[in-house]
Amino acid sequence: MRWADGFIAVDWGTTNRRAYLIDGSGKCSDEFEDHKGVLSVPAGGFPDAVGEIRQRLGDKPLLLAGMIGSNRGWKEAPYVPCPAGIDELAKALVWVGEREAIVPGVSYLKNERADVMRGEEVQLLGAVAAGSVDPDGLVCHPGTHNKWATLREGAISEFRTVMTGELFSLLKEHSILSDFLKGPVEPNDVFKQAAAYAISHEALPAALFSVRARVLLGQSKKEDAASYASGLLIGADVRVGLSYPTGAEITVIGRPELTQLYAAAVAQASRTVVELDGEQSFLAGIHEIAKRI
Amino acid sequence: MRWADGFIAVDWGTTNRRAYLIDGSGKCSDEFEDHKGVLSVPAGGFPDAVGEIRQRLGDKPLLLAGMIGSNRGWKEAPYVPCPAGIDELAKALVWVGEREAIVPGVSYLKNERADVMRGEEVQLLGAVAAGSVDPDGLVCHPGTHNKWATLREGAISEFRTVMTGELFSLLKEHSILSDFLKGPVEPNDVFKQAAAYAISHEALPAALFSVRARVLLGQSKKEDAASYASGLLIGADVRVGLSYPTGAEITVIGRPELTQLYAAAVAQASRTVVELDGEQSFLAGIHEIAKRI
Repeated sequence: MRWADGFIAVDWGTTNRRAYLIDGSGKCSDEFEDHKGVLSVPAGGFPDAVGEIRQRLGDKPLLLAGMIGSNRGWKEAPYVPCPAGIDELAKALVWVGEREAIVPGVSYLKNERADVMRGEEVQLLGAVAAGSVDPDGLVCHPGTHNKWATLREGAISEFRTVMTGELFSLLKEHSILSDFLKGPVEPNDVFKQAAAYAISHEALPAALFSVRARVLLGQSKKEDAASYASGLLIGADVRVGLSYPTGAEITVIGRPELTQLYAAAVAQASRTVVELDGEQSFLAGIHEIAKRI
Repeated sequence: MRWADGFIAVDWGTTNRRAYLIDGSGKCSDEFEDHKGVLSVPAGGFPDAVGEIRQRLGDKPLLLAGMIGSNRGWKEAPYVPCPAGIDELAKALVWVGEREAIVPGVSYLKNERADVMRGEEVQLLGAVAAGSVDPDGLVCHPGTHNKWATLREGAISEFRTVMTGELFSLLKEHSILSDFLKGPVEPNDVFKQAAAYAISHEALPAALFSVRARVLLGQSKKEDAASYASGLLIGADVRVGLSYPTGAEITVIGRPELTQLYAAAVAQASRTVVELDGEQSFLAGIHEIAKRI
């Protein structure tokens, strides 16, 4: 590794960024998170935004992943097509300066189906590198846009985006269901019942309105509606994932409050679930890429 | 009809209202439309809002349908359960004063499925009364919330709400797809291709993100994205409707700019479509109810 004295890794998303100081052995010795996502940085503002990171964590080389490489970011890093593993990502790094590299996203294009990811690939491949996931397995990465990815020999061979998180937010903030969705979402019996229904029925576009109708007709308590709606959305999402022919085990990588919901839904389909922490997977992945610089 | 000298019919929705002066023979002799929907009327403001209608169309009895009978309206008119025909609606009119009646909505509750409609029932049953639709047929009523309704002996025997119009609005106004959905929606080849795909694939939650990915990867022009997204949403909606076992013909009732899109999508499934104007169906239905007063 050329960066033997360590480097700074940044998972730089649309609305947040998380920066980690990684020492030569790959261990994280300092870190911070703030709300300076890509969309909050003004045009031409990235050198300053990067300088701020170095002020806090030290004057080290930077390896940046996520929306920082999109057309709204610092410099566009073209997508690497599937199949994509750590080697492919490392070869396609986009350099902004001599000590600032951006990890590319991954694209899938086949049979008229088009899809893109940016940021999740580091976590998915990091989990493979850490030995935490079957290199030929099926992985789910919940978030604003959930990704279902199939791995083949440790590389991402195919993936599919489901807009579950964003749909829930849109319905909660702006729809006729808003008034019903203010409560907490819990992986409780109501959630599981809705998830089981959505997994076994082709339900989503026709089922969402029932969140309101069930309360109006006295079939459901209003305080359960958020869990019910989330169960329908995540169940429909899991139904998409189950269409992939793989082994029995499904790995869910991400933030624990989301992975627990997906794990509860997947369990309704009698499949084994392993939950992995997204942050640890990111650190494993970004270190693997840095080793190849 | 007790209202032999005519009456005023109002289709009073959430954001708009349309008022019609109907003479003793059932003909509409005057009308107006404005944006004084239910949500724009302050608490206690309905007597004034109704007085305004009489000022414009005359001091006649009023027959009101739509969200005016909801818990946000003038007085709540409880839902009539399926099967519901004109007779059932007329018997369940809710009277606010001696000359002001509200038409109830219709509910469906069976096998844990719950659904409600309010306003569409007058159009659906009006089309039956006018002889424009098979009394045992399948009817589609597009709008913010599309309704698929099966008729049996001229009554609504079952129905299902699909939130297609609202989902498109949410995606257009507030989502990551917003920037792609500013263009016009046309029943063009792109729309038909997307509709055919969504009709034959269980596609919606996983297909929406492709609207963005297709443009980013150069598979689709940005100016076609709105028609493509609409085709996916309406195709998924039609897929729901096609799950009902009925004859070959499907009647689509509503505003012509919407019925033409649904007709184009239904045609992709090689089914015969008849488009009916929603306003004429409303007038036929409300007159049938008035006859029973």
